[in-house]
Amino acid sequence: MTYELWYWSGIPGRGEFVRLALEDAGIAYRDIALEEGGDEKMMAQLKAEKHTPPFAPPFLKAGKLTIAQTANILLFLGEKHGLAPKSDAGRYWVHQLQLTIADLVAEIHDAHHPIAGSLYYKDQKHEAARRTKHLREERLPKYLGYFDAILARNGGWLAGKRLTYADLSLFHVMEGLRYAFPNAMRKLEKTHRELGALHDRVAKRPRIAAYLKSDRRQPFNEDGLFRHYPELDA
Amino acid sequence: MTYELWYWSGIPGRGEFVRLALEDAGIAYRDIALEEGGDEKMMAQLKAEKHTPPFAPPFLKAGKLTIAQTANILLFLGEKHGLAPKSDAGRYWVHQLQLTIADLVAEIHDAHHPIAGSLYYKDQKHEAARRTKHLREERLPKYLGYFDAILARNGGWLAGKRLTYADLSLFHVMEGLRYAFPNAMRKLEKTHRELGALHDRVAKRPRIAAYLKSDRRQPFNEDGLFRHYPELDA
Repeated sequence: MTYELWYWSGIPGRGEFVRLALEDAGIAYRDIALEEGGDEKMMAQLKAEKHTPPFAPPFLKAGKLTIAQTANILLFLGEKHGLAPKSDAGRYWVHQLQLTIADLVAEIHDAHHPIAGSLYYKDQKHEAARRTKHLREERLPKYLGYFDAILARNGGWLAGKRLTYADLSLFHVMEGLRYAFPNAMRKLEKTHRELGALHDRVAKRPRIAAYLKSDRRQPFNEDGLFRHYPELDA
Repeated sequence: MTYELWYWSGIPGRGEFVRLALEDAGIAYRDIALEEGGDEKMMAQLKAEKHTPPFAPPFLKAGKLTIAQTANILLFLGEKHGLAPKSDAGRYWVHQLQLTIADLVAEIHDAHHPIAGSLYYKDQKHEAARRTKHLREERLPKYLGYFDAILARNGGWLAGKRLTYADLSLFHVMEGLRYAFPNAMRKLEKTHRELGALHDRVAKRPRIAAYLKSDRRQPFNEDGLFRHYPELDA
């Protein structure tokens, strides 16, 4: 059974959190976004899913299962492919971390789209500037301080001795934040050094290193979650 | 073992989704928010949690486990107390629904706080009016249409024959939306009748009916997730 990842083309987006888990676990998968006419195929499939319909992409098809919601897909991959502990304590802890990462990612998105996802950035620039100031000055320090302290306490990975899907997602958040807010991140990383260390440990894993060099890894741009608008950086 | 729910006092908030699951399953629990000095106790406990620290309340203490993130707490309660199917297909489906409800709830919150949670509503009223218009006209029809169609297809409960934690959460979203946006909801419910039917089915369950009449059920107000500001209603 080859898994299928269904997501928008042209951006890493939320699909990237799933890609990193698939890549690190060495799972064979078909990435529809990289195929000719990927968006049209994806939209048609989204409409065709009647049994457990996704509200939005990404969704993963694994045999008879269709699973949507990024954190839920990672819960599945974690359980079936060794990307999360088996114990109850470990399972719920890693999922709690992932849902907190999901909250952070939503806040990062909404900083450039505080009024509506259906409007262009230019139609909400003033509001974006206000919201992003709060993101940079209040929310990022709070979230990054939280994850940094956990890494410092647990020594290496968020859940202790072994990498989990939450570590892979936090790596991608660091990549995205460095792209979107290079000035703000330079300052923040001075006092949150565990995050950079986690980033580097993930980047060096052989399968991740190979993936990052491949065409399968898509660059950030101003259509995605993490956008670099210089006027929004410190 | 008596479970403990740790959350802010004075609002239903995100703690309410957990309360409804605990109440429907007939689980004995201590609700710290209803105790004298609940907020101070909660903040002290939040600081004291070093092993699996919550980023924010609510969190549930169940024996040795401390579990945070509303959807994650419900995943736990669903698995341990019969509020979700046992099959993989059913488990991931119900969690997918819950995470979609969580996204909706975050959008409802951000409609009255589009700039920052740390600012008062009065300091972001103009932006709130813009964002809430999109919520009422685009997002609520999309989300409510999605859940309504699933209920129509599955006949009764979101996941088929038996109630799950996602049904309890959707009940509370309907209560909250009717409180916050009575005008908008009167119109929306005319074309989404399954949602009102689900609401009534949940409200009639004996344990839920008893809970709703009790002092343990807290009213909505303008400090919570669901706020009634007449200027934001249609």
